[in-house]
Amino acid sequence: MRKKIIVIGGSAAGPKAAAKARRMDEFAEVTLFQKGADLSMASCGYPYFVGGFFDDRNKLLCTPTGVVRDPNFYWDAKEIVAKVNTEVTRINKQDKTVEFTDVVTGEKGTQEYDKLIIATGAKANLPPVKGVGLKGISTLQSMQDADYLRKIRDEGKVKKAVVVGGGLIGIETVEALHLAGIELTMVELLPQLLTFLDWKMAKLVENYLKTKANVITKNGVSEFLGKDGKLVGVKLQNGTELPCELAVIAIGVKPNIDLARDAGIKIGEMGGIVVDKYMQTSDEDIYAAGDCCEINNIITGKNVLAPYGDLANLEGRVAGENVIAGNKVTFPGTIQTGVCKLFDYGIGITGLSETKAKEAGFDFVKVVNASPDKPGFMDGKLLVTKLLADSKTGKILGAQCLGPGDVSKQLAIWATAIKGKLTVEDMVNADLPYAPPFSLAIDHSVASAHILQNKMKGVFTGISCMDVKEKLDAGADMYLLDVRGADEYEETRLGIGETLIPLGVLRKRLNELPKDKEKEIVAFCKISLRGYEAAVMLKAHGYTNVKVLEGGIMAWPFEKEK
Amino acid sequence: MRKKIIVIGGSAAGPKAAAKARRMDEFAEVTLFQKGADLSMASCGYPYFVGGFFDDRNKLLCTPTGVVRDPNFYWDAKEIVAKVNTEVTRINKQDKTVEFTDVVTGEKGTQEYDKLIIATGAKANLPPVKGVGLKGISTLQSMQDADYLRKIRDEGKVKKAVVVGGGLIGIETVEALHLAGIELTMVELLPQLLTFLDWKMAKLVENYLKTKANVITKNGVSEFLGKDGKLVGVKLQNGTELPCELAVIAIGVKPNIDLARDAGIKIGEMGGIVVDKYMQTSDEDIYAAGDCCEINNIITGKNVLAPYGDLANLEGRVAGENVIAGNKVTFPGTIQTGVCKLFDYGIGITGLSETKAKEAGFDFVKVVNASPDKPGFMDGKLLVTKLLADSKTGKILGAQCLGPGDVSKQLAIWATAIKGKLTVEDMVNADLPYAPPFSLAIDHSVASAHILQNKMKGVFTGISCMDVKEKLDAGADMYLLDVRGADEYEETRLGIGETLIPLGVLRKRLNELPKDKEKEIVAFCKISLRGYEAAVMLKAHGYTNVKVLEGGIMAWPFEKEK
Repeated sequence: MRKKIIVIGGSAAGPKAAAKARRMDEFAEVTLFQKGADLSMASCGYPYFVGGFFDDRNKLLCTPTGVVRDPNFYWDAKEIVAKVNTEVTRINKQDKTVEFTDVVTGEKGTQEYDKLIIATGAKANLPPVKGVGLKGISTLQSMQDADYLRKIRDEGKVKKAVVVGGGLIGIETVEALHLAGIELTMVELLPQLLTFLDWKMAKLVENYLKTKANVITKNGVSEFLGKDGKLVGVKLQNGTELPCELAVIAIGVKPNIDLARDAGIKIGEMGGIVVDKYMQTSDEDIYAAGDCCEINNIITGKNVLAPYGDLANLEGRVAGENVIAGNKVTFPGTIQTGVCKLFDYGIGITGLSETKAKEAGFDFVKVVNASPDKPGFMDGKLLVTKLLADSKTGKILGAQCLGPGDVSKQLAIWATAIKGKLTVEDMVNADLPYAPPFSLAIDHSVASAHILQNKMKGVFTGISCMDVKEKLDAGADMYLLDVRGADEYEETRLGIGETLIPLGVLRKRLNELPKDKEKEIVAFCKISLRGYEAAVMLKAHGYTNVKVLEGGIMAWPFEKEK
Repeated sequence: MRKKIIVIGGSAAGPKAAAKARRMDEFAEVTLFQKGADLSMASCGYPYFVGGFFDDRNKLLCTPTGVVRDPNFYWDAKEIVAKVNTEVTRINKQDKTVEFTDVVTGEKGTQEYDKLIIATGAKANLPPVKGVGLKGISTLQSMQDADYLRKIRDEGKVKKAVVVGGGLIGIETVEALHLAGIELTMVELLPQLLTFLDWKMAKLVENYLKTKANVITKNGVSEFLGKDGKLVGVKLQNGTELPCELAVIAIGVKPNIDLARDAGIKIGEMGGIVVDKYMQTSDEDIYAAGDCCEINNIITGKNVLAPYGDLANLEGRVAGENVIAGNKVTFPGTIQTGVCKLFDYGIGITGLSETKAKEAGFDFVKVVNASPDKPGFMDGKLLVTKLLADSKTGKILGAQCLGPGDVSKQLAIWATAIKGKLTVEDMVNADLPYAPPFSLAIDHSVASAHILQNKMKGVFTGISCMDVKEKLDAGADMYLLDVRGADEYEETRLGIGETLIPLGVLRKRLNELPKDKEKEIVAFCKISLRGYEAAVMLKAHGYTNVKVLEGGIMAWPFEKEK
């Protein structure tokens, strides 16, 4: 008897699961249902199609050798029946069938399965406000959305657009539309963009984004304004009206679970389908994979929604193997690694942010390191990393990284370190690939570990820019010591009442420092390497309350003087 | 009493150790002896100065903010006495002094130490052949060498050069001189370049290098030919004469251990100073760091020479801390991670090659994966990875990677995985940063783990190109099955008697395959992903001896038909 496998959903997890099932069993009957017209869309590539990085939409649907993954491809290469434009409307657990409707012809049908894989993905959230149905409002969630926005780019008529939501997709959409020559405003309800980052890191992103677009935070959309059914502006909760011809809504996604829920399959607290490590749902013949699921966060042990394309593929692979072979392979879960590009910046996180580490009850140490990815003579670019480790064990808990430098390598290193349960101590002597075209002799990641190690040993006493700012705002009397060169100081400075004494003359000018050796001194430089040396020196000379401004001027997210 | 610290050697490990010692103890007397005129030279950057990536030599000597690290800098910023042009001629262990000579004035002196750090580096090997002292022969080991070769570039008179030695420095030198407009020939005594790689990987490098320069392997220099004291050519062992005005010798380095040996400090079997994990030598008051030492290979437990700039810095940091604080910190050793750039290629290794794994007695599995670093629509570039893991435990033993793709990220991932003792199984579901500008949804590293996992499970039966070639040369009767498209086949093919049956029609044309179902079939495509699918299918249809050509056509190092 040939095994009957049905997969619902033709984007990432579904096709991967179907293909894996086929490789596991050449004679299984594998059917892939897809509600839309396209299959295996590289949906993470939509912003780059809209932004004009390439022109042929089929590149989003192709194999690496340029064959479009349509139903013919699936049949010829993999003997998978791919039914596109076909919506599964019901799962009957008892008799193990699915009911479906051809969305073009309206024709209905029923098909049996031995094992079913649900990979229905997620749908874009929409704000419950007036005017959300106007022409000129879109998401960037489907191939159709991508086609629509690309057409707008190509026509070149739209002058102003608003992107609602400052998450990953919002960020990528701003870049895409900016490259299309459109004047952009990003609106975010919360006090920061990219909530997977801590506030300060997000603020550095915001500062950079502001060089390209308008950014409004702590303000939501109260209404989309229309004329003759067409969008003409966005009204914010504080009353501001932003005239625009286009609005893209990117306020997150939620799992598509209607089919599963209606079939009585268990849904979790996060709103996704509950699966075990085999990607099996509460029904033993039904598996699920991709954005419709909740999965385990390996660090906290809690279930999370992690709608990422890479995880969808990995989960699909596990589900596809297990439906054929029985529960042989497992998916261990996620550490919620995410990255995005914003013009010249890479921005991302792996593991826990400070906010999430607090929520999860960890006792942790943290540090911010701002330094280049490569030597200056090889045109090294800045990276800012915030690194967290468990206070007791030193185990790495999370790393956030951003800047024009090679962010994705840094995140890959930390993601692998977290996977390997490595500690700060381990990373201090990590043997990474070094040559000037690729890194500094002491790689940025290793340098981050060095600083955190110094901090854990009490050699480096850091203070975050947030704490400095708060103290200053509260009128604290700190001695702020900038130890850079006079020329650097002339070029740019924090302007918070600091005193300039370059490191090279500091030993000779110790007498200029406060007489009260218990006074709080905050030392810094461009990236706080010299600041650190100054602090060590001052401590040795009897100053008892010396701190280093972490990340120095390059990581200062507030206004500077120029 | 102020502690007296002496550091011998002012390149990488020495200055790092001196600076760390200073930060550990503001009041220690720290003296750094340097035989040459320059300090803290970024010696790994020499090829890029010669190649014209930048013009100001001082960039090789600068802090990130552009201050030259000269004796004044060391005194002002770190209160370290840096004695340049000063050669330490003798270490007296008994009375704990060093004797030194000012190489400019000839003045001699003696200085006491409490703790001594030897960081004398390595010196370039020279071949013991006639004419090696001719004008026009250089190494690329010192700032003076770099200045000399840069001058040659700037003058533009040299037309032809020979680089002797196909190691890391040789490879980088070829690029530098090629960019200087010089016609290059590389001569390597051994049968392959870059002996840290396995033969096939090195062959791919050689194939690429041949598009830029002449490459001669299995042939050494028998004589440098001169006229009026100037180089006019290189004579090889097989009698070939290569006319040239410049030769750069890059046949490796050996530790500079004369001072240490003469002082009775223990030298190891590899020819380097023996240190323990604290970087302490056989004398308890003498430490050593950098290229002059032997260090532990973490995977094999054996001592090795690992003359890399990053390790020198890390070792110096450990030595610098321990001379002040007592043996508090340790250096765990190396996994011999190395990387270099060759025009558009990155090339490197971390952990063990197949050759080294065999030598060390490991029972291992291996795979070659050729696939892009990013999606095609984001202009993804090819990576070829050879991955080794322990047969029993699955622990990653080593990874070699090369190609125009993002090699350094791949190596960083594997280096961290080895550090974390991760297994193939762990890496199969690694949660790495994914977005199309940075990687494929299934990162190349994860895909490499997938293939190796399939191989370990017996689902994927691979055969290396070497084995295919050997069998063919021995007249074996294999059925070679190319499953690409007809257009791809027209463009380029192996030309080894293969039959083209595209994957999409393979199921319909099974009758064209050998009737003998036990016949050896080798399936492949561009990167052997479709080759793998074909193999799985054929096995399901009863063929019992089907293999996949690992890495496919992209990793085939022999001649192809075009």
